[in-house]
Amino acid sequence: MSEKVVIIGGGAAGPKTAAKLRRIRPDILIELYTQEDIISYSACGLPYFIENIIQNPQTLILRTPEDFKKQNINIFTKHRCIKVNTEEKNVVIKNLETNEDFNVSYDVLVIATGAVPVIPNIQGVNLKNIFKLRTIQDGINVKQKMRTSKRAVLIGGGYISIETMEALISNNIDVTLIEKHSHILKMFDEDLAQMVQDYIIGRNPGQAHILTNENVIKFEGNKNGEVEKVITESGKIIEADFVVLGTGVRPNTDFLKDSGIKLGVYNSIKVDNTMKTNKQSVYAVGDCTHDFNLVTNRHVWVPLGSTANKEGRCAAINIAGENCIFEGILNSTITKYFDLTISIIGISKKEADKLGFQSEYAIVTKRDKAGYMPDTGTMTLKLLVDKYNHTILGLQGIGEGDVNQRINTVIPAILGKTKIETFMNLDLPYAPPYSPAIDPVLNAAQIVYQKIND
Amino acid sequence: MSEKVVIIGGGAAGPKTAAKLRRIRPDILIELYTQEDIISYSACGLPYFIENIIQNPQTLILRTPEDFKKQNINIFTKHRCIKVNTEEKNVVIKNLETNEDFNVSYDVLVIATGAVPVIPNIQGVNLKNIFKLRTIQDGINVKQKMRTSKRAVLIGGGYISIETMEALISNNIDVTLIEKHSHILKMFDEDLAQMVQDYIIGRNPGQAHILTNENVIKFEGNKNGEVEKVITESGKIIEADFVVLGTGVRPNTDFLKDSGIKLGVYNSIKVDNTMKTNKQSVYAVGDCTHDFNLVTNRHVWVPLGSTANKEGRCAAINIAGENCIFEGILNSTITKYFDLTISIIGISKKEADKLGFQSEYAIVTKRDKAGYMPDTGTMTLKLLVDKYNHTILGLQGIGEGDVNQRINTVIPAILGKTKIETFMNLDLPYAPPYSPAIDPVLNAAQIVYQKIND
Repeated sequence: MSEKVVIIGGGAAGPKTAAKLRRIRPDILIELYTQEDIISYSACGLPYFIENIIQNPQTLILRTPEDFKKQNINIFTKHRCIKVNTEEKNVVIKNLETNEDFNVSYDVLVIATGAVPVIPNIQGVNLKNIFKLRTIQDGINVKQKMRTSKRAVLIGGGYISIETMEALISNNIDVTLIEKHSHILKMFDEDLAQMVQDYIIGRNPGQAHILTNENVIKFEGNKNGEVEKVITESGKIIEADFVVLGTGVRPNTDFLKDSGIKLGVYNSIKVDNTMKTNKQSVYAVGDCTHDFNLVTNRHVWVPLGSTANKEGRCAAINIAGENCIFEGILNSTITKYFDLTISIIGISKKEADKLGFQSEYAIVTKRDKAGYMPDTGTMTLKLLVDKYNHTILGLQGIGEGDVNQRINTVIPAILGKTKIETFMNLDLPYAPPYSPAIDPVLNAAQIVYQKIND
Repeated sequence: MSEKVVIIGGGAAGPKTAAKLRRIRPDILIELYTQEDIISYSACGLPYFIENIIQNPQTLILRTPEDFKKQNINIFTKHRCIKVNTEEKNVVIKNLETNEDFNVSYDVLVIATGAVPVIPNIQGVNLKNIFKLRTIQDGINVKQKMRTSKRAVLIGGGYISIETMEALISNNIDVTLIEKHSHILKMFDEDLAQMVQDYIIGRNPGQAHILTNENVIKFEGNKNGEVEKVITESGKIIEADFVVLGTGVRPNTDFLKDSGIKLGVYNSIKVDNTMKTNKQSVYAVGDCTHDFNLVTNRHVWVPLGSTANKEGRCAAINIAGENCIFEGILNSTITKYFDLTISIIGISKKEADKLGFQSEYAIVTKRDKAGYMPDTGTMTLKLLVDKYNHTILGLQGIGEGDVNQRINTVIPAILGKTKIETFMNLDLPYAPPYSPAIDPVLNAAQIVYQKIND
C-alpha cells in the first residue's frame, strides 16, 4: 500500500504542502481536511476586497478543491480535526455537516491549522455588526455592512486595522481607530509610528481618528442587538454603525492539548528546522507553528502567509525524502496606507534595548530618486546596528518613496551578518529614475557607522 | 602652514572628495582644478534633459563653485592638469583661457579626471551634427538639433543609447540604433538582451529601429558639412539629421604618461582599497580608476557615478587621517526604457563561462505583486549560481514590474556569499501590493537550487 500523508488545515501552508509533495512524489496518497468550506485563499487580500480594489471575492481563492482533485489530492472541506493520537498514528475528524466523528490513520501527519482571531473579553462583544476579519465570509460581511454605514470603529492598531482603515476611508466612512498602547504599530518605535499616525490624520482630517492609550470597556447595542456605541475606560463614547476587531490572532492548537505534541511561545507548535514536531512522523507548518528569529536567536510567533508558503514547501520536500532546512525569519513585515509604505524588518530600538543589545541607530529622511527627477518621493529610514559586532539589527521605513526597495536591500545583509562598514559601500545600481547617486539606505549606514566610531 | 590638498577634476568624485574632506577637516587648504567651466553635475541626467522631463539644464548642476567657495574650497574652472611631478609634489596646470602653464604644489594630490568619450575612427566622424553626450553642453546641442529634426542614428547599443533612444522617440524622432555586436547591451546574455530589443521595436514599430552585427564605415555629409547619411559595412545607408555617438568612454589618464603613477586595465589608474595610487600622497577616485570586482576577484573598469561618490568619500576620510576601506564593486547597473527596467548585477552566464565558472541558472517570468491586485507588472529574472559553492554570481532583470527591488535584494547576498539554499527561504516582507507570497526572486532561487541538485 502507498504511504498516506494527512494534512490538517486549508489556508496557505496546508495546500502548499500538498501541491509541492504531489509534484515530487506522484505515488503518495494525500488527504487534506479543513473546517472551512473553501481552501487556499489569500486572507491578506481581504482589505482590498472591502475597499473594492478587488470586486469578486472569488479572485482571492487561488485554487479550489476541484483543482486539487485533478492532482489526485483529496480535499475534505467542513471537516474539523478534533484530536491527534500520535501513538496510534491517527486523527479524529468531525464532519461539520453531519456532526459525525471518525478516525483517519496516517503515515505522515502535517498540522497546518493556522491561527484564529482573538476575541477580546469585552462586554457586548457579541453584538451584531462587530466583525472579525479572517475568512472571505468575514470580508463579505464587512463590505456589505459598510455600504449602508457612516461610522465605524476599529479596535487595535496593527496592520489589519491600518489596511481596513484605508478601505473604509476610501468608501467615505468616518473611522475611529482605538489602540490601547501609547502608539499604533507597536512593533515599531514610537517616533516612526507617530509619523504614520500623523499621515493618517493629516490625509483625512475630520474623517480619520486615532485614539491611543484607550481601553475599550464596553460595546453598547440598540434594541435589535446591533452595536451603536463603543465606550472606553477614560469615558469616551464613540458612535459606530459597525466595529472591526483587529485584536490579533492566536495559534489554532487547542485540539492538540492531550496529543503530546509540544507547544511553545503563545501555544504555537514547536518544530525543528525541518518542520518536524517532537512526535515521529508529525510535521507542522504555517501560522500554527513557532518561528526562529535569526536576529535575536529566539523563538517567536509571527504568523505570515509568506512564511507559511516557505514552511509548507520545505516540509513537503522533507516528507518526500529530500532535504530542506528552514533556517528562520527576520520579522519582515510591510503594509501600505494609501501612498504610504510602512515596513519593519529585524527588531526596533526599543526591542533591542529590552533584549540587552548595545545598539546605535540613524534616522534619515531622503528622496528616493535623483533630486531633479519629477516623480521623487521622500522616505524616512531608521537603521539599527549592533555597536559590538557592527551587524545590522533592523530597519524601519515609512514613506511615499520606494521604502520597499530599501527594506529588501537590508534583509540579506542582516541574514549574512554583513558589517555596517562593508554595507555602507554596497554597490547598488544607480540611475536617476531609481535612486540618488548615494542611496538613502547607504546614507543611513554611513551615519550610523560614524556614530559608532565617534 | 596648513596641509594642502589639490584635487584634479570636477565631475562627481572630485567635488565629493573636497566636500567630505572639508566636513572632517576645517583646517586643510583645498584647491580643485577642472578643465570644464562647471563642476559637480549629473551627466546621468542628460537623457532626461533631452527628453524634456527636465527643462532647465542648470537643474543637473548639484553645486556651483560659489557654493564650494562658502566652504573655503577654491575651485579653478577651465584649468587643465597637463602633468604630475610626484617627486617634486607638484602638478602643472594650464589656464585654458590664457593658455599659460603654472606649477601648483601639493601635500596630497587627488586625481579625479574621470573619463572621456571614445570617438570612433570612422570616415566623416567630424561632420557637423555628430554629437557625443558627456557634458551639459553636449546635452544642449543634441536637444537643440532634435527640435528641428526628423531622423537620428545612435551608434552603439549601451545604456546611454537606450536612454537617448527613449528621449528621441518621445520627441517624435525616427531613430535607428546601430550595434556592431550580435545584440545590444553586450554585458547581458543574448536571451535577455533580445527581450529589450523586442520591447523597443514593439513599442514603436516603424519609428524605432535596431541594426545588430553592423559596422558603421562612413558618415556622409552635405555641402554644409552636416551629416546626412550613415553607411554600414554590409551596404546599408541610413539617412540621419543627426547622430549621437554612444561608443563608450575611456579613462582620462593620458596626462599621467610620464608620472610614474601605475595604470591598469584600459589605462585606468591602479589604486588600493584606500584609494591610494602607487605614489606617496597621491590618491585617485572616480571614473579614472580601476575597480575590484568582488564576484570575479579581478580588476575591471566600470565608470559609474555611484562608485565615484563612494570612492571620493572614502579617499577624503583616509586623507583626513581616519580609516575607510572601499572593498569593491559588483558591476551593478540599471537603466529604464519607458516602463521597462533593465538591470544586471554580478556577471552574465556568457561571462561566467568565459571565466571558467561552473554555473547554473534559472529564468522566471512572474508578476511582481499578488496576482489579484490590479496594477501588477511582469518581469523576467535570470539568476546565475556557482554550482560548486552555491553562491550567487549574478542576476539579470528585465520588465515592467518592479525589477529594481529584486536586483537590490540579491546584491547583499552576492556580497555576503549567501548560499542559494539559504537565500531561497529569505524572509522578504509580503503584502499583496508589494509582492506575491513567494517573491519571484525566491522562485528563481528555488528553481536553480533544484537544477543544481538534480
